[in-house]
Amino acid sequence: MKKEKVPKILVINPILQSEFDKADKEFFLRKFGSSLEIEVESIDFGPASIESYYDEVLAAPFVVKKVIEAEKRGFDAVVINCFLNPGIHAARENVNIPVIGAGEAAILMALMIGEGFSIVDPGPRKYVSYVPPEQVRKMGVTAHFVSVRGAGVAVLDITKNLEKTTKMIGEQAKLAVEEDGADVVVLGCTGLVGLAPRLQGLINTPVIDPAVAALRMAEALCGMDLIPNRIAYPKPPEKKRKFPF
Amino acid sequence: MKKEKVPKILVINPILQSEFDKADKEFFLRKFGSSLEIEVESIDFGPASIESYYDEVLAAPFVVKKVIEAEKRGFDAVVINCFLNPGIHAARENVNIPVIGAGEAAILMALMIGEGFSIVDPGPRKYVSYVPPEQVRKMGVTAHFVSVRGAGVAVLDITKNLEKTTKMIGEQAKLAVEEDGADVVVLGCTGLVGLAPRLQGLINTPVIDPAVAALRMAEALCGMDLIPNRIAYPKPPEKKRKFPF
Amino acid sequence: MKKEKVPKILVINPILQSEFDKADKEFFLRKFGSSLEIEVESIDFGPASIESYYDEVLAAPFVVKKVIEAEKRGFDAVVINCFLNPGIHAARENVNIPVIGAGEAAILMALMIGEGFSIVDPGPRKYVSYVPPEQVRKMGVTAHFVSVRGAGVAVLDITKNLEKTTKMIGEQAKLAVEEDGADVVVLGCTGLVGLAPRLQGLINTPVIDPAVAALRMAEALCGMDLIPNRIAYPKPPEKKRKFPF
Amino acid sequence: MKKEKVPKILVINPILQSEFDKADKEFFLRKFGSSLEIEVESIDFGPASIESYYDEVLAAPFVVKKVIEAEKRGFDAVVINCFLNPGIHAARENVNIPVIGAGEAAILMALMIGEGFSIVDPGPRKYVSYVPPEQVRKMGVTAHFVSVRGAGVAVLDITKNLEKTTKMIGEQAKLAVEEDGADVVVLGCTGLVGLAPRLQGLINTPVIDPAVAALRMAEALCGMDLIPNRIAYPKPPEKKRKFPF
Amino acid sequence: MKKEKVPKILVINPILQSEFDKADKEFFLRKFGSSLEIEVESIDFGPASIESYYDEVLAAPFVVKKVIEAEKRGFDAVVINCFLNPGIHAARENVNIPVIGAGEAAILMALMIGEGFSIVDPGPRKYVSYVPPEQVRKMGVTAHFVSVRGAGVAVLDITKNLEKTTKMIGEQAKLAVEEDGADVVVLGCTGLVGLAPRLQGLINTPVIDPAVAALRMAEALCGMDLIPNRIAYPKPPEKKRKFPF
Amino acid sequence: MKKEKVPKILVINPILQSEFDKADKEFFLRKFGSSLEIEVESIDFGPASIESYYDEVLAAPFVVKKVIEAEKRGFDAVVINCFLNPGIHAARENVNIPVIGAGEAAILMALMIGEGFSIVDPGPRKYVSYVPPEQVRKMGVTAHFVSVRGAGVAVLDITKNLEKTTKMIGEQAKLAVEEDGADVVVLGCTGLVGLAPRLQGLINTPVIDPAVAALRMAEALCGMDLIPNRIAYPKPPEKKRKFPF
Repeated sequence: MKKEKVPKILVINPILQSEFDKADKEFFLRKFGSSLEIEVESIDFGPASIESYYDEVLAAPFVVKKVIEAEKRGFDAVVINCFLNPGIHAARENVNIPVIGAGEAAILMALMIGEGFSIVDPGPRKYVSYVPPEQVRKMGVTAHFVSVRGAGVAVLDITKNLEKTTKMIGEQAKLAVEEDGADVVVLGCTGLVGLAPRLQGLINTPVIDPAVAALRMAEALCGMDLIPNRIAYPKPPEKKRKFPF
Repeated sequence: MKKEKVPKILVINPILQSEFDKADKEFFLRKFGSSLEIEVESIDFGPASIESYYDEVLAAPFVVKKVIEAEKRGFDAVVINCFLNPGIHAARENVNIPVIGAGEAAILMALMIGEGFSIVDPGPRKYVSYVPPEQVRKMGVTAHFVSVRGAGVAVLDITKNLEKTTKMIGEQAKLAVEEDGADVVVLGCTGLVGLAPRLQGLINTPVIDPAVAALRMAEALCGMDLIPNRIAYPKPPEKKRKFPF
Repeated sequence: MKKEKVPKILVINPILQSEFDKADKEFFLRKFGSSLEIEVESIDFGPASIESYYDEVLAAPFVVKKVIEAEKRGFDAVVINCFLNPGIHAARENVNIPVIGAGEAAILMALMIGEGFSIVDPGPRKYVSYVPPEQVRKMGVTAHFVSVRGAGVAVLDITKNLEKTTKMIGEQAKLAVEEDGADVVVLGCTGLVGLAPRLQGLINTPVIDPAVAALRMAEALCGMDLIPNRIAYPKPPEKKRKFPF
Repeated sequence: MKKEKVPKILVINPILQSEFDKADKEFFLRKFGSSLEIEVESIDFGPASIESYYDEVLAAPFVVKKVIEAEKRGFDAVVINCFLNPGIHAARENVNIPVIGAGEAAILMALMIGEGFSIVDPGPRKYVSYVPPEQVRKMGVTAHFVSVRGAGVAVLDITKNLEKTTKMIGEQAKLAVEEDGADVVVLGCTGLVGLAPRLQGLINTPVIDPAVAALRMAEALCGMDLIPNRIAYPKPPEKKRKFPF
Repeated sequence: MKKEKVPKILVINPILQSEFDKADKEFFLRKFGSSLEIEVESIDFGPASIESYYDEVLAAPFVVKKVIEAEKRGFDAVVINCFLNPGIHAARENVNIPVIGAGEAAILMALMIGEGFSIVDPGPRKYVSYVPPEQVRKMGVTAHFVSVRGAGVAVLDITKNLEKTTKMIGEQAKLAVEEDGADVVVLGCTGLVGLAPRLQGLINTPVIDPAVAALRMAEALCGMDLIPNRIAYPKPPEKKRKFPF
Repeated sequence: MKKEKVPKILVINPILQSEFDKADKEFFLRKFGSSLEIEVESIDFGPASIESYYDEVLAAPFVVKKVIEAEKRGFDAVVINCFLNPGIHAARENVNIPVIGAGEAAILMALMIGEGFSIVDPGPRKYVSYVPPEQVRKMGVTAHFVSVRGAGVAVLDITKNLEKTTKMIGEQAKLAVEEDGADVVVLGCTGLVGLAPRLQGLINTPVIDPAVAALRMAEALCGMDLIPNRIAYPKPPEKKRKFPF
């Protein structure tokens, strides 16, 4: 009868502003209770939000740095709390604890509960049409990928009018199901955290919250007693690396 | 602060003999402590073990029956504890709780921790060369599938000489890594439950135990507040169905 | 100059009611004349029709049983007369004669006569959107799969108003060609037997009747002098199997 | 009770020499008895054998010409008797009768009887390593393609020492099964006609004769009452075409 | 400092009429200045234009003949100036200089500048729906293939009313981007040479001219010092080949 | 007759040390003469060499910065001179000139000259087994990907004993051809610049130098008059981005 120790997980918001950190932490606390010990932290440098490859590139070095520190600080796992999983492979190369990306976790969970998933993103079409398909292709799971849709809300405006955001996301989610043929909707941005239950009510189809999926997967991995995968993610060789931090 | 209620999960061993049930339950109790409430039950009809499509066909109706009853008995989720997931889709059509197959869960977990997985099965080559590839193809994740190997142990002999079984499985796991190029090993039979840590020690590469993976995934799904997927798995229409039980 | 002996084929209707058996047999007799010796039989247990994975699971054990008996009764080949091919792999494991599934045969014939096929099913969208794509993916021929469409007729109502059924199927077949871009239509249910010529007249595009395709493929295989494929479908090992029949 | 009329099929050997025509016809007569009416004809221009894309290009115009004439002469179907199916699409554009390629028919039949096929060709490795994979990819059935092997016999030497040819092909077929993991062997050249039964005896695995498979598929298609596929293969528009024959 | 010698490239128009040759040459001269030495020649036999597999088959032998002569005449590379690349593999087998197909070059260039390409063809839908998808599949790059569209202009009418042709092509290109989701448009016919800049102006999306792409790729390959690929394209063995020219 | 202006291309070595820059520039000058105006520059921060995802992540922000500056400095195109193309998508989002990655260019060129390519890398197996397959999968060209092999030379040791490096690379290239079945070898590291001709001599098979391929592709793209692809790579929206440079 073990039980005393619960996994201690660092959720990294790979963006600048830290006001989200507190809201996220409160949400996770309500959601996960005492089954997980969760800290939420953002990064000191990087973009205000992640809506392009450029943002991903600017965030990744600081995510990796934070993951390395997290291991030293005694965390059992790290969640990179962004659908694009910035720096995930590089982070895995550097630590011996599980590193979970919100996008990866959400997509794999979609495979577990249905046959065809659509990704519904807050952003306008032009920011969503190219990144998610590449991510799905890179993950090698195109067989179940139905479509991607954007709702036309800028990431930083999501919480300004949550009712409107929910309505706009809900409309695209409905179209993903009715026109594209999806049977699972994956939210394409961790900024939509907490919205899944209301969206499920609107469209009567399972909706996956990537942040929650990532924490659940982190918890699952912590309970697997797996050793690090040093073949897929070998330790980077020692050599000169110069970085301005 | 919730926490009181832990998920109650029924593990169905889709085979005849019930002596495994008790051993499995004890192992799961040691492994999961009080974080899950687990029952393990086998089926009244079907095969002594599952090593062919024929066995799968004979087990599936009784698995589905048991899943339907599990929902009525108040279980929060069901694990079909066999790498071939017999009856999984049919079960999902009939209930509103998550139904997790050990093979599916193990393969999806492999995608989360590495780039290329091999399935190592106890059975001889001829029983493993055709089923796992179809399963992987059906799941649509061939991009990460490296190879399948069989160790030449009959399922019912696994526990007769566990040392020998471990050695034989370990040799194939080693070849999967060194010759085939796998970076994750997925055990291809739930009869190998509990062996993963020793195998990891032998090959220094992550080894996934499908029964444990399924329970962890069941726990994760129970914490997602997802509604049933009635598009992918619609309720079968009412009509005459005659079955001899 | 041989010629005396024609292949003797058992067509198994993997459903309960037997009134279809006689109609099917008369149709096949008109269609195939004396070039094949055909018997049509349904199963004693199972579902009234096959419209879900659940129905498939309930039918499969009885299909396999009948296939095993068919070999003993001297049949040269067996056709599983349902688009979902219930029990096909398990049946192949148990006998040395060809076992042909109507769905498999129809899809492979479609590959032989065109570049992109759609499956048009009698059932409503919700019953067709998930099974055929998995079947096509399992067969590994997604490259030529254009779409699946459902006409909204319950399987057991097909023959109640054949004119209306034909019209409804014809409309979806037309859309499959004009909107989806198919150049071959595969009927997704053997309950539509005999309808293909009229549909071809309506849409001016080849339409494949799965029951006829299966019998033609069975005839072709009987003339190939092939030995059984014991690698892909090894004989299931002897062991305890308990089943209530 | 029909039966009087049997399908009349033209087998086109897309090569120059005609001594093979007679041997092929005698073999087909023994094999098919009176169930098919078969003529075998070679072409007036083209290569002595087909072992390169160059040979295919030189043969194709004359194959198409012969297919057009065959329809006028009253044949019910045409078999292009070469694994590379030279001119098959162009032929289909020009006629309303089925045109079957030996390679296509053999590969589709392999899909019907197993899970993974290898192509074993008489030619040396360098002539086989590039053409069959492209053919399989073009057909869109790579999921079941295991390997290709060449035996090192020039096409025109096949019949010079049939015993030796059989032995050399048999060795590669054995390796395809034992090392590559194939469960069906497809012979990669119609010059090997009639060898399949002996090879099956040697390797205890099904071996598909592409010429026989093509005739069986032609017979099957003749019995399907299908209309021509004018979407996939529209009639070429009338215009100036200048050709030196 | 080298520079004296520029690559000498033969552009083969694989069609009968030669009036296009002069216009093409003038266009290329304006476009490429003195950086390439270009000759444009059509073939003596074959079709007036290439709009079917039949046309391709009739043109291919004469293309190969011309490629062989081109090498003897001292050209450094050959461009087969047709989207269908007639005879390309056969040509490569016979010479030691690069042979570039306009369709292949355009599609590969599309992969270099975007994530999803559509092919827009002058011809009506029925002539375009089947050939380009097979070409893309044969090339193995379906992952980036978005759609194919036809504008309904016969190849030989393209230049009769260039304004109208441009408008019709532009409309389909616009739909490819807005409805199908393409981010690059590949023109599906070398008869549209020179139109790309105006189309880019209309749709504000990159448009690839296959003839120009082929010449640029030919120039690039000439500067790579690559030896011929005799594994993929081995020299055809010497033997009897009879052809009426 | 234009000709005066040649494309001005910046080659970015995405690594710290600058001694390579001069050697590279001299090589390119000898190789390209006056047909291109080439500058070679490395980055101020980042890793000493790129052998891991970690190195890629550390280099990418500085590559993007340099690409943005290159456009302002009047370059016509930029080459990211590393097989892993660090920062390529992010760079494309930010500028209106072509950005070519050495890995992408080399792989696409391989598709143009053969049927199956292998990547031969200097590094040991463990550093090469995971990155190139993902890169190929992300590019969507797995159909032609044969294998990846590592020679066991650290990137920074390549030039220390060039003879030995050549020999070790040559051995793996030979195995890629003879055992894996490749017909084109792509060098997996731009540190091997200039070695291709000698390797071709050793293995008698085309060998692609990624740095040269990238410059040739850059030259080709500069001559295409293409507008930027703002759909696939939209300009990142203005917002706060904080970075320590």
